[in-house]
This record gives sequence, C-alpha cells and structure tokens, in this order.
Amino acid sequence: MSGPLFRRLCLIGAGLIGSSIARLARERGDIAGTVVAHTRKPETLARIRELGFADVVEEDAARAVEGADCVILCVPVGAYAGVMAQIAPHLAPGCILTDVGSTKGSVIRDLAPLLPPGVHLVPAHPMAGTEHSGPDAGFATLFEGRYTILTPLPGGDRAAQDKVAEFWRRAGSTVESMDAATHDKVVAIVSHLPHLIAFTICGTADDLAEETREAVLRFAASGFRDFTRIAASDVDMWRDIFLNNRDALLEMLARFTEDSHALARAVRWGQSDFIEDRIRRGRRIRRGLIERKQA
Amino acid sequence: MSGPLFRRLCLIGAGLIGSSIARLARERGDIAGTVVAHTRKPETLARIRELGFADVVEEDAARAVEGADCVILCVPVGAYAGVMAQIAPHLAPGCILTDVGSTKGSVIRDLAPLLPPGVHLVPAHPMAGTEHSGPDAGFATLFEGRYTILTPLPGGDRAAQDKVAEFWRRAGSTVESMDAATHDKVVAIVSHLPHLIAFTICGTADDLAEETREAVLRFAASGFRDFTRIAASDVDMWRDIFLNNRDALLEMLARFTEDSHALARAVRWGQSDFIEDRIRRGRRIRRGLIERKQA
Repeated sequence: MSGPLFRRLCLIGAGLIGSSIARLARERGDIAGTVVAHTRKPETLARIRELGFADVVEEDAARAVEGADCVILCVPVGAYAGVMAQIAPHLAPGCILTDVGSTKGSVIRDLAPLLPPGVHLVPAHPMAGTEHSGPDAGFATLFEGRYTILTPLPGGDRAAQDKVAEFWRRAGSTVESMDAATHDKVVAIVSHLPHLIAFTICGTADDLAEETREAVLRFAASGFRDFTRIAASDVDMWRDIFLNNRDALLEMLARFTEDSHALARAVRWGQSDFIEDRIRRGRRIRRGLIERKQA
Repeated sequence: MSGPLFRRLCLIGAGLIGSSIARLARERGDIAGTVVAHTRKPETLARIRELGFADVVEEDAARAVEGADCVILCVPVGAYAGVMAQIAPHLAPGCILTDVGSTKGSVIRDLAPLLPPGVHLVPAHPMAGTEHSGPDAGFATLFEGRYTILTPLPGGDRAAQDKVAEFWRRAGSTVESMDAATHDKVVAIVSHLPHLIAFTICGTADDLAEETREAVLRFAASGFRDFTRIAASDVDMWRDIFLNNRDALLEMLARFTEDSHALARAVRWGQSDFIEDRIRRGRRIRRGLIERKQA
C-alpha cells in the first residue's frame, strides 16, 4: 500500500455510522491522512472533541469540505438537500462525494442536480447498524462482514467508484453494485417494511385495553421481542427513510397487506392447505438464508 | 419433599415440549414416579424408545392414560378433540388432565364437554419453545425462567390447579393465572400475529421478480433476519394455532392492519409528526420490556 486512500476525508455527521468511519480511519493508517468531522449541534461538536476520533472538528459545513478529496454524508437522508445547498459551492474539483444513506433514489434526486462539474457522486449504503445512535455509539469494526451496496450513476467516474469500493473493502465490507431502483426495492422488503411493521405492532399493542396491555408487556414471547428489537431505533433516521423510500415502501406494504389478507381469509374459512403452504414457504426462505450464512 | 408430585405421569405427544417434560421428570426425582409416553406415529414411537426418556412407551392412547394421576396433552391443539374422544373413557377418577397448547379457549371448547366426572381439567400454556421440533429437540431446562400461564375453569378443583402450578414451578417456570379469553388475546398479539406476519412477509419476498428475490436473500439485513427466525417453525403446530385462536388473531390483525394503513398514509402524505410519534411509541414499549427484563 502506498499511503492512505484519501488525503483529507470529511465526514458530514458523526453519529453511529460517521463516528465508526472516523474511528476506523484512526485505527488503520491506510484510509485517510486527515479526518475532518462536521456536525450541526453544538453539544455534539463538543462531544466529538472530547471523544477525539477526528483530527479536525469543524462547526461550519462549507469550511469542513474545503480541500477534502472525499466527503461522506452521514446524516439522515432527509437532511441531504439542505446540506448539499451549503457545501456544493465549496467542493473541490476532483472531490468524491459519497454517503451512507439507506435510500438511494432520493439521494441521487437530492444531490445530483447541485453537483459541481468535476465532483464525482458515488452513492453508497453500508448495511450495518445497531440499536444505538450518536457519536458514542460508533466502533471501528461496525462494517466488518457486512455488505455495502454502491449505486453508481450511469456514466459516472470509474476511478471514483473504485476508490469508494476500496474504502469499504478496507472497512471489512463485501461490496456489491446495483442500480438505485433495485436497491430501493430490496431494502424496502428486507429492512424498511419490517421496521414499519415493528413500529406499528408496538403501537397496536399500546392501544389495547389497560389490563391486556399490562399482560402483553409481561408475557412478550420471543415473537414480539424480535419485533421490538427492530423497533428500538433512531427516530429521525427512520422518519427520513420512510419518507425518502416512499414509493418502494408503499408498494411492498401493499403486496404484504394483500398477502396477509389472503392468509387471514384462509384462517377465517379454515383452509388448512393454504395456511400450511404459507408456513412452508417461510421455512423455505429461512433455509435459503441459512445456506447463504446470513442468519 | 415427600415423594414425587405424580405417581404416574402420562404424556400424549412427545415432541419438543413433551420430550422436554419427560427429560425434566427423569432428571428430577420429585415430579413423577413413572413417565408414560404415547405418540401416534410408529417411527416416533421407535425414536422415543431409542432416546429412552420415558419409562413406558405406549402406542395405544387409551392404554397410555390408564392408571395415570396426571395426563398432559402435548400434541398440536387441532388434535385435542380426536385424542379426547379416545382417552376420555379411560381417564381414572381424580386424574388431572392438563395440556401445553398455545390457545386456551379452543382447548376448553374441545375437552370440557367430554370430561368424565371426577377428572380435573387444568389448561396450561408454558411460553417456551425453540425453532426445532420432534422428540430429539427437547431438553430438561426448556421451561426455566419462562412464564407458564394457567387458565383454570371457574369452579374448577383448587387442589388440582395447585398441583399443576407446582409442577411448572419445579420445571423452573413462573406461573400466572388468567381467564382463557384474556390469554388468547395476549398471545394473539405477542406471538400469533408476529408469526402470521413473518410467514406472510417471507411469501411476499418469495413472490418478487427473480432478480430482486435473489438480492433479497443476499442482503437480508437484521430486520428480515428476525422475521425469518420467527418463521422457521413447526407447520402442524402453527396451522392449528391459527385455526384455533381464529377470533383473537383476526381481531388483532384487523387492528394492526388499520394501524399500518394509518402509518402508510402518513408516509404517502409526508406527515412527519405522525411518523415520529409511531416510532417513539415503539421505543417506549421496547423500554417497557427492558425494564421488565423480558428483552
């Protein structure tokens, strides 16, 4: 290896993902010469200084990106348009602009129109996370063994894409590429819809009559526990994901609702064969996951 | 302690739960003098003999219950009516008839009408299980630290209820009592609806176009993984649970569907406040579970 991948790496946002990247860059010498971290809230800026994982902590987004050869957006996807309006005029020619957002169509929609000539946009989504958020929650090994999906733009700069892919490989990720629309459909069903369902079922339980609700909390079996594990997540991040993957999410919810009504109808009318078939399909998919060592 | 709780304990069915009870009785001296196990399929009978966790392995259900002072039904709840027709004339006076089924209204519906005079019905539901099934899957500590819910009948024999409660306490369970209708509502939301949803979403994913489905299997993030963990369960058991807790399950699904539509509408129309409120409620329930050390 010949020196770090990036001379000056700028992180816009330093929550779970951003602070994990900073910690990773600090631990390994081959990622960035200098790590610059920007965040909006004064108390988070102070906390980042205390934690000491960035070389430069910058309260002004425009100044933060100046001179950086790579800028990674690590804020909730709903904040991208506002951030881009601030930083776009200050991005250096040749700079790589990438991100870690869970929706990719919206990212291209919000960033591409403001992209200065000579700046290379490479949208990325590391499929990693925990239930925790904020700069204290990050750790350098967060991305190890996880997938990172790149959704490069047609005709985008190949060298920039290779560099972003190499960055994620050094973080320990397996890198895959696909178009943004496919990405958004896949994450809608594997992640966004499960979260929407989990948030919903918690609310449904919370609305039950007092006596039943108390018993629900007491007897929450493993089924409901798994749901609530999913549901213990960052509010801003999930609001933005739902709003910015709206079309794929609503399509997957519509399909799921049709399917759940079909199963409910079979339960109502005692159609054992149909019910058994649905249960067997679930088991088959489960086996498929195990064979892929994902579960 | 003065001798075992039951002189002759008969298990009808020896899958995950039944074989765990047999192993537990064998490990502890204070549960049963003799353990009789009955199962319908010849290959399972042979396997039970090989595993050696029962003192008597009996292929005829009527003969199995003869002389037993406690009979525990450990078959899928859909089989109760058929089993009861076989065994009822052979239950000894003073015998305790109990079970381990996940639905309780249906159990009372199917067993109570055939109950001989002097036989005491004490419906029970140990909230324990794994993804595995069959006589090889059981283990003596399955019930440790789990809840067992009794749904005694109004006017039922108090001594029989105390004995069943004591049995589950010796198995390591915390015992609670409630009426069957409340039980069925609680398990509908904490367990049966989550399973129905999990089976459904696996099918929804399986129906996606080939390319997307392949990517779904590859990128299944933690959200979807938790769902498929739930979905990897015994077919007969879950078919019977859905069919025998139909009313409570359909009611909870209807409530859940209304709530998911409300959240979908908020996503469609960009109602951030509503979405944030739903996410916060999920987190609040999650905290409630953690405080109860259930998660």
